[in-house]
Amino acid sequence: MSKEFGPDYVRAIAPYQAGKPISEVAREFGLDEANIVKLASNENPFGVPESAREAMAAAAAELGRYPDANGFELKNALSKRYGVPADWITLGNGSNDILEIAAKAFVQKGEAIVYAQYSFAVYALATQGIGARHIVVPAKDHGHDLDAMLAAIDGETRLVFIANPNNPTGTFIPGPQIEAFLKKVPEHVVVVLDEAYNEYLKQEDQYDSAAWVKQYPNLLVSRTFSKAYGLAGLRVGFSIAQPKLTDLMNRIRQPFNVNSLAQAAAIAALNDTAFLEKGARNNAAGYEQFVEAFRQMGLEYVPSYGNFVLVKVGNDPQAGARVNLALLKQGVIVRPVGNYGLPEWLRISIGLPQENAVLIAALQKALAAE
Amino acid sequence: MSKEFGPDYVRAIAPYQAGKPISEVAREFGLDEANIVKLASNENPFGVPESAREAMAAAAAELGRYPDANGFELKNALSKRYGVPADWITLGNGSNDILEIAAKAFVQKGEAIVYAQYSFAVYALATQGIGARHIVVPAKDHGHDLDAMLAAIDGETRLVFIANPNNPTGTFIPGPQIEAFLKKVPEHVVVVLDEAYNEYLKQEDQYDSAAWVKQYPNLLVSRTFSKAYGLAGLRVGFSIAQPKLTDLMNRIRQPFNVNSLAQAAAIAALNDTAFLEKGARNNAAGYEQFVEAFRQMGLEYVPSYGNFVLVKVGNDPQAGARVNLALLKQGVIVRPVGNYGLPEWLRISIGLPQENAVLIAALQKALAAE
Repeated sequence: MSKEFGPDYVRAIAPYQAGKPISEVAREFGLDEANIVKLASNENPFGVPESAREAMAAAAAELGRYPDANGFELKNALSKRYGVPADWITLGNGSNDILEIAAKAFVQKGEAIVYAQYSFAVYALATQGIGARHIVVPAKDHGHDLDAMLAAIDGETRLVFIANPNNPTGTFIPGPQIEAFLKKVPEHVVVVLDEAYNEYLKQEDQYDSAAWVKQYPNLLVSRTFSKAYGLAGLRVGFSIAQPKLTDLMNRIRQPFNVNSLAQAAAIAALNDTAFLEKGARNNAAGYEQFVEAFRQMGLEYVPSYGNFVLVKVGNDPQAGARVNLALLKQGVIVRPVGNYGLPEWLRISIGLPQENAVLIAALQKALAAE
Repeated sequence: MSKEFGPDYVRAIAPYQAGKPISEVAREFGLDEANIVKLASNENPFGVPESAREAMAAAAAELGRYPDANGFELKNALSKRYGVPADWITLGNGSNDILEIAAKAFVQKGEAIVYAQYSFAVYALATQGIGARHIVVPAKDHGHDLDAMLAAIDGETRLVFIANPNNPTGTFIPGPQIEAFLKKVPEHVVVVLDEAYNEYLKQEDQYDSAAWVKQYPNLLVSRTFSKAYGLAGLRVGFSIAQPKLTDLMNRIRQPFNVNSLAQAAAIAALNDTAFLEKGARNNAAGYEQFVEAFRQMGLEYVPSYGNFVLVKVGNDPQAGARVNLALLKQGVIVRPVGNYGLPEWLRISIGLPQENAVLIAALQKALAAE
């Protein structure tokens, strides 16, 4: 027996590289926190909805108690919103938790998971963490190549991750293409459709994935409250799937995985359509502000359906890291994506108009010094 | 290939049975929430410390942001408190998360985990969730039999869970016995020492497990803020271990597993010695209140070192469930422990003096009707 601790596949994991928090950048670069602009983690520039703050204040009295392990109230609210029974819903400590639970619930060592090149880093981590085999399908135009993904499914494949819109590239797969894919996937292969950025889609791009769940017993739709709903710091996401899958998710889920304040805040945010609409308007305007600036600066970017844009800041493999450092020194935090195999690019979250303007000015300065 | 979803070992899991929340009991039994006494989940009867509330209010402004994935401030506070480097600490979404991460980081399918009969239910769930083999060592006087646990370690064993004090029985292993065990455990077997109830120990029973961590590279000490610190609803726990183990924990840990408010509240609670002392005094007095009543009622109980007592309420295998139902109808929630193989017993958390009095009266009434 090996005298090393832990399975080989755990020792081989490269931990997730989170965006630097503002406090850390302030410490590292000797900057004033108040002057730092963070457009790095696809967060909501409006923060937490006021409705969610009020709900948390009401829930705060009972924080010495464990959370409701069954998430009764939040599941009921989600059930009404999505038109599915409450017991089709699994709550997660952010949708990251949903993705990890799905990998652990449906796949074991020796089996395989299919996902796309340039898709969310947690798919690779969740696969590696259970010792499963990675089947990484090359991207097409920085997005998912569903035909190639279908062809990549082999006899050991038990799960496929699809991000729509995709992070970090912002690409989008139209609904009919996803449904065509669902029709062809073998029925014993679970499809995890990660819709973390769904709420930013324009009306004409929306599709009804909850309706697909009723039709496809192997589909699990994953959503989060961390983006459009502004609750990233609280940690709450959820999935919708038929009972066969949801039952297994619940066996793997930690019983108290979603804290009490997150449950209360999510119910309030779910019904705060004014907050969502304000966020969508700001996001659309910020996207135009960015792409107009990128055009003027002659920078290539990937058309985005999320609350961020992937932009190419140079032609050599150090470009992203170098421009990122130049931005950090100016107090602007964005996301380098070298770990995604995109070392010439940066991912920039859409902020408030003034934050976007600071980023544009800082980027112009950084590129002028190249 | 099987057409069932999920590995066999996942389909075999019996999900954790959480205590019923007050709202659920009110719904189910048609009671007023305000009149319900919950002594079921070993929660802190004083709720959240005021110091933690103030810290949360200060942190609430940034909840649209992701939490600090590295837990810089909280790890620094814990580092100072326990005299270990900050990078020896792993933060968890409650200590439940720590226990699950440890199982996943150190053990794989085909290997084994040793734990004691009547010890915390999550050890069995964490073992089952990764498809590892359970080695359950019979209890001695409702507690851990360390000699038998040592003898049970076989060539496939990679991890041993020890709860001290133990939940749900309240038993305690004196420090010197644990250290003698650590000296004898094979060096490649990880010992997870779960000290969720440590803060309730009397001064003379305390031992310095952080010092042991410096000596034993295979020891991981797990702690929680859910009990004595009163933060159960927020979800925060942590582990202390040398870098070899901590590094693997961090590869498995979800990057944003601890929410921002929990991190802020934990720092405040950690330094709130007045709150801890008030809780310890209340707990000692409540324990005397319970055992005096149990003696008068002629009920057997297991001497407890935690914030709860295991009491025998009958001699047939339905006794626990029956008395539990009679208590629920009176608006008192305790914990039946049939799922632990203790169907004649109930686990009762120590509350405020008035809550304890309500439990005692309700228990007398329930037993009189037997």
